[in-house]
Amino acid sequence: MSTHQPPPSVSYSFVMRLTYPNRIGMFAKLTQTIGKLGGDLGAVDIVNPDAKRMTRDITIRARDHEHMEAIATAIRKIKDVTVANVSDQVFLLHLGGKISIKNKVALTTRETLSMAYTPGVARVCTAIAEQHSKAWQLTIKGNSVAVISDGSAVLGLGNIGPEAAMPVMEGKAMLFKEFADIDAYPICLRTQDTEEIINTVANLSVGLGGINLEDISAPRCFEIERRLQEKLDIPVFHDDQHGTAVVVLAGLLNASRLSGRPLAGMRVVILGAGAAGTAIAIMLEHAGVKDIIVCDRAGIINAHTRPDLNDAKKALAASTNPRGLSGKVEVALKKADVLVGVSGPGLIEAKWLKHMSAKPIIFALANPIPEIMPEAAASRAWIIATGRSDYPNQINNVLAFPGIFRGALDVRARRINEAMKLAAANAIANCISRRELSAEYIVPSVFNRDVVKKVADAVTEAAIKTGVARKGRPRR
Amino acid sequence: MSTHQPPPSVSYSFVMRLTYPNRIGMFAKLTQTIGKLGGDLGAVDIVNPDAKRMTRDITIRARDHEHMEAIATAIRKIKDVTVANVSDQVFLLHLGGKISIKNKVALTTRETLSMAYTPGVARVCTAIAEQHSKAWQLTIKGNSVAVISDGSAVLGLGNIGPEAAMPVMEGKAMLFKEFADIDAYPICLRTQDTEEIINTVANLSVGLGGINLEDISAPRCFEIERRLQEKLDIPVFHDDQHGTAVVVLAGLLNASRLSGRPLAGMRVVILGAGAAGTAIAIMLEHAGVKDIIVCDRAGIINAHTRPDLNDAKKALAASTNPRGLSGKVEVALKKADVLVGVSGPGLIEAKWLKHMSAKPIIFALANPIPEIMPEAAASRAWIIATGRSDYPNQINNVLAFPGIFRGALDVRARRINEAMKLAAANAIANCISRRELSAEYIVPSVFNRDVVKKVADAVTEAAIKTGVARKGRPRR
Repeated sequence: MSTHQPPPSVSYSFVMRLTYPNRIGMFAKLTQTIGKLGGDLGAVDIVNPDAKRMTRDITIRARDHEHMEAIATAIRKIKDVTVANVSDQVFLLHLGGKISIKNKVALTTRETLSMAYTPGVARVCTAIAEQHSKAWQLTIKGNSVAVISDGSAVLGLGNIGPEAAMPVMEGKAMLFKEFADIDAYPICLRTQDTEEIINTVANLSVGLGGINLEDISAPRCFEIERRLQEKLDIPVFHDDQHGTAVVVLAGLLNASRLSGRPLAGMRVVILGAGAAGTAIAIMLEHAGVKDIIVCDRAGIINAHTRPDLNDAKKALAASTNPRGLSGKVEVALKKADVLVGVSGPGLIEAKWLKHMSAKPIIFALANPIPEIMPEAAASRAWIIATGRSDYPNQINNVLAFPGIFRGALDVRARRINEAMKLAAANAIANCISRRELSAEYIVPSVFNRDVVKKVADAVTEAAIKTGVARKGRPRR
Repeated sequence: MSTHQPPPSVSYSFVMRLTYPNRIGMFAKLTQTIGKLGGDLGAVDIVNPDAKRMTRDITIRARDHEHMEAIATAIRKIKDVTVANVSDQVFLLHLGGKISIKNKVALTTRETLSMAYTPGVARVCTAIAEQHSKAWQLTIKGNSVAVISDGSAVLGLGNIGPEAAMPVMEGKAMLFKEFADIDAYPICLRTQDTEEIINTVANLSVGLGGINLEDISAPRCFEIERRLQEKLDIPVFHDDQHGTAVVVLAGLLNASRLSGRPLAGMRVVILGAGAAGTAIAIMLEHAGVKDIIVCDRAGIINAHTRPDLNDAKKALAASTNPRGLSGKVEVALKKADVLVGVSGPGLIEAKWLKHMSAKPIIFALANPIPEIMPEAAASRAWIIATGRSDYPNQINNVLAFPGIFRGALDVRARRINEAMKLAAANAIANCISRRELSAEYIVPSVFNRDVVKKVADAVTEAAIKTGVARKGRPRR
């Protein structure tokens, strides 16, 4: 099996309802068939026990879609086995959508109806009309965020369009609720035009406490975010940029603590100059890193040697690459301490790493297939982090955005500024104590519930200190 | 007390925490003070019983805001009574908003996280990218609606702006959930420009199964709705127009059943040529009514005598007023069978009614103060309906829109057409049996839970019959 092949996972699990003669050896034949193909047998439930014919629901985990089909086909071919149906667990979970609206008060009596709606509601409207800021208190604004995408850069799938982006935005809304108790609406836009997106988002923002832009392709995402930030007095946060950058910085802060080398003195190479790569470069600059080189598919981003650069990359060229290197990524990697990949599957070769400094730190964040698999980098890398949950050091945005928005909403912040993002990165890093820190544990688990609280506290404090808070520190 | 003064209500209720000497006569003094000012004493809770000083929470209902203040002031003036705090029940209910998002699956394990979000979600995205219609099944689209306003015509409050409209839209979202289990997002727009509204709503519609426009002023509302209907393949429904028209028609259908006179032969006068008045006129035409006259503040809408008419009113003039009357509303009322007021408080004079036919039917729907109070119309009117819950025959949109949208979503309707609205009106009317029907009971109660189901069934059937359904009849 190639190292690029992921293990069987619940993301590709399905249930087959099978009926077969109730005789010795039949079940063993099933498990052998699944095992031979590399599938994982999960729960086995009896549906209809019968002395002659047994009906069971069998849960099977596969590696990917083709693998699922191969296993199902093999099972269908077993003599005397009848397949009643095959149900895909992931699709079942998505039926009818993953979120719903909940009323905080039931409208079952005349009394509640006339308080929550007419005529009682009119007084609340009047109070807000007289003082708009009261909307933060008296409506859902103070706890709500829109997760907005145009479907132009969804996961690793690319420009699949707004309809197909909906499941991701709904999933993101679930993460907001589960991790930070924030009410998020998933909104997918019927346009990929920059001006239309800016106008639409600005127009729908009145009842919101913040905007989470998601999966919008570079370089459009930079202008969209910047213009919306100028236009609106609530946070506008493109998570693919800043969420990623914050968690990468958190990981690097801990790698620096562990190595004893100050982060500011490290040489960092970023492979990938899209939304994430650009934001990581900017964030690391703000964190004091002096020597950053960004590479895209054509090599080192250098304004003098690369006539092909768009405006966003020209800006990157101006602020990075202090030694003026040019050429392939291997050139940049010479004596580099850190390599952050935010590009595509398999784009880092193991042999490149030998030119890096001693104890190289490799973040290979392409998902689900990293730039280099941890096994392939293991002999040369000192620390390796990926975006995957099945290896140590998972760099996952869910460590950042719930706490960042929680902290911002709690003080009704006007924006999420650099100080707040730096505070978030430090808070995430500090969730791991000096004693706990190791090369395989530089970022906390996504299920560490302390993270959100600590990030929110740090973000709140930074917002107050930098004057973007409209409200004092909340009791949390 | 004037008949225009509403009774004390829960919409103006407040709780006062009072401390006073625990001696005979003190509580009586309190109740007398409240009673003398016309307030209603509600729940009385003991907070801190003490032999010497008693602390109680007293709930008081007032008529309106000034009345609340008058009562509170009077209580503060009672000797030996200390007021610890006064809390307004309606504002308390609104604190932090009235709705929230709920996850259908908890994301507490790695398994659910990887099925609802990455990497599992990618397969669902791919399936939708290949066939967009799958979004109806696999995302919240199939059960979700946006309640959208620009805040230009909110309740009876007028153009109070989008921030102040939020509590109404949230309340409407609650009604969708409570009455039809539909997930509705409240969205208030930062623009009152027709083109901007059309673009914004169209752009944000991808993940929605329908659009409920709300509290947008006439005549802009007509163009906004029409253009969006042309642009989108999901229902766009301005409830102030059609919700009202459907329930008015339902009431008139039952008034007609009760009187034995066919509706088509009745003479109908509509006072008010805004969103509701216009939609009622059009709906009654579709229901077969031949003689409709619409009046605005300047009198009868007649293209020949009224050079001041805007395009919407010119269209109304062309299809109504078959006898070509002109002048004041009193002229129109001569021998009229029905007067529907959708205008403003106190705009119908009792003396006008004597020129109407025998057994006149009066719908005085301005809210909270009707065009004429039922008491003032009682001697002349045969049937009187209002928008109020404290008189018989409440014409309330909540009888219509939840069932209409439920029915439309259940068959993934492309639009809500005339046939579906007529079906809804008939279904509402038929919720009252011939035996139950009376002059004081022509529309069902808003708490009659059969209404939504019956309306949804009728709307579904009409959608299928008229070819706007994308899906067969659901099991309900």
